[in-house]
Amino acid sequence: MTPTGNDASLAVDRLRRARRALITSHRNPDGDAIGSELALAELAAALGVEPVIVNRDHAPANLTELPGVETVIVAEALPADFPEGFDLVVTVECPGLDRVGFDGLDRLPILNIDHHLANPGYGEVNFLDEEAPAAGEMVWTMFKVAGVAPSVSAATNAYVALATDTGDFRYSNARPRAFRTAAEMVEAGAEPSLISEWVHDGRTIGSVRLLGEALKTLRFLCDGRLASLEVDPAAFERAGADSTDTEEIINIPRAVAGVEVVVFCKQWEPGRVKVSLRSRGAVDVRSVAARFGGGGHSNAAGCSFELDLATVRSLLESTLAELLGGRG
Amino acid sequence: MTPTGNDASLAVDRLRRARRALITSHRNPDGDAIGSELALAELAAALGVEPVIVNRDHAPANLTELPGVETVIVAEALPADFPEGFDLVVTVECPGLDRVGFDGLDRLPILNIDHHLANPGYGEVNFLDEEAPAAGEMVWTMFKVAGVAPSVSAATNAYVALATDTGDFRYSNARPRAFRTAAEMVEAGAEPSLISEWVHDGRTIGSVRLLGEALKTLRFLCDGRLASLEVDPAAFERAGADSTDTEEIINIPRAVAGVEVVVFCKQWEPGRVKVSLRSRGAVDVRSVAARFGGGGHSNAAGCSFELDLATVRSLLESTLAELLGGRG
Repeated sequence: MTPTGNDASLAVDRLRRARRALITSHRNPDGDAIGSELALAELAAALGVEPVIVNRDHAPANLTELPGVETVIVAEALPADFPEGFDLVVTVECPGLDRVGFDGLDRLPILNIDHHLANPGYGEVNFLDEEAPAAGEMVWTMFKVAGVAPSVSAATNAYVALATDTGDFRYSNARPRAFRTAAEMVEAGAEPSLISEWVHDGRTIGSVRLLGEALKTLRFLCDGRLASLEVDPAAFERAGADSTDTEEIINIPRAVAGVEVVVFCKQWEPGRVKVSLRSRGAVDVRSVAARFGGGGHSNAAGCSFELDLATVRSLLESTLAELLGGRG
Repeated sequence: MTPTGNDASLAVDRLRRARRALITSHRNPDGDAIGSELALAELAAALGVEPVIVNRDHAPANLTELPGVETVIVAEALPADFPEGFDLVVTVECPGLDRVGFDGLDRLPILNIDHHLANPGYGEVNFLDEEAPAAGEMVWTMFKVAGVAPSVSAATNAYVALATDTGDFRYSNARPRAFRTAAEMVEAGAEPSLISEWVHDGRTIGSVRLLGEALKTLRFLCDGRLASLEVDPAAFERAGADSTDTEEIINIPRAVAGVEVVVFCKQWEPGRVKVSLRSRGAVDVRSVAARFGGGGHSNAAGCSFELDLATVRSLLESTLAELLGGRG
């Protein structure tokens, strides 16, 4: 699909013709999904359309401060008055209709707003722009096309979408367009430092103490190409941490120059060890995870074992050393 | 000092009148220091001035990929032919002449380019703009004023300065001006994703081990609003780390929910303790640093002491506890 200014105009026109719109996105919504939905709901309201945001899953904990997020309905099924109570479905940041997690959305006309390459254009009107750094940037364009001045909350939510989908302007989609749009959003009232606090600064004390515990066990193998670390039940206890506090740990050794693979073994309860694997570049850790009944992607995978921690760690270290050796 | 467009013109004019310029910055140079120096050296060369960058300390490991960084001379003293071989000193990102680490710089005229609030204007020509998000942005302005098209490497180095000093556009200095300038730099060839790999994924093993050492000393005070940690010479030795390996440590406790201030005390060599302070929101740590002869910004400041580590840490903790208490 070639993006044209027209697509945004058609999208605004289609939205304006609705009376009550159901706005939704993909399952396990991220910052671009929720930020875009919330900004879009404000645009709809400004155009005289009643917006109802319905998602299949809750927002992650780091997105619960977004203005208006309390209006998002999280439900296992569509509202009871669907489709009668509505006359339009708007999907945003949703490459396929099956990704929403609700059946029967196609009983109403669909306005499909997305920046994913693979979106087939399943809507009555499709505003698709694979060059857009985030769906939130496309919603921002719709404000401009509609001549609606974005409120501070709309700017804030659109900025959340843009900043999270560009990895704080560190991914390859951080092109001049992303920066120029960010400037407009900040001018309209978005506060990057406050938003960054919401998104990034919600770590627990337990997670930081657990990182300290994990680093005590860190070792580098294969000439520094493999990093390995662990946390056992005693470490969880000393840190005052629980199983949700392990998230960021693996990224620390992953950022070391020369490291190609990291293996992180976690034993939260006796008898069960969870393993996370991360790699850079061409090293495929999914194949290793798959060998032990796990799965994931080429650069991020996981598996689990009912063995003791020391056995699992040594098994994974030798398997990964072999993998790295095989490439050399 | 009030920033005016004129300051940039005066700075360009002064630079242009030189024949051979010594460019320098503060000790323990960060991304804004080195990025600005390298971009400035290119501007000088384009204006027919021979640039020589001399720093007191090495670039941290995560900045060793910057284009041209191999031209930076790291030395304990000024070049043997100083001042005769030179006719101008350019300091960039340097709030005080004593911060450079060399004596006798004032034997030559000084061009002083900086965005720190406390810079007293110690140069013959002073280009000071406390509203600038980074010194690198001011150097970028000088390119524009001089009518010199920045090369890809100049854009890259200026972007490094801007992205690191705004914390990847997450600090309060991430204003529209920062984003608009970033857009220009990316248009001129800077690649945010590549630069982010250099800056963030080039950690040393020593820096990760030192993080582990620092976390062993982490404590939370004032109901979790103040976090405090330290590294002593023994920790540096156990970690196999040096003074450039401390960069990322302070950001870890800063990301804990509820933490408003972090104090990080570092003793690399006996008899001298360096203190880094970070805060969120309205808590002004620059005022605390200033009380001890240091400086910086409202949310990021530092100072140093010739006292023992335990004394410094306890002094800072009590001073910050008072500051936090005074706000409650």
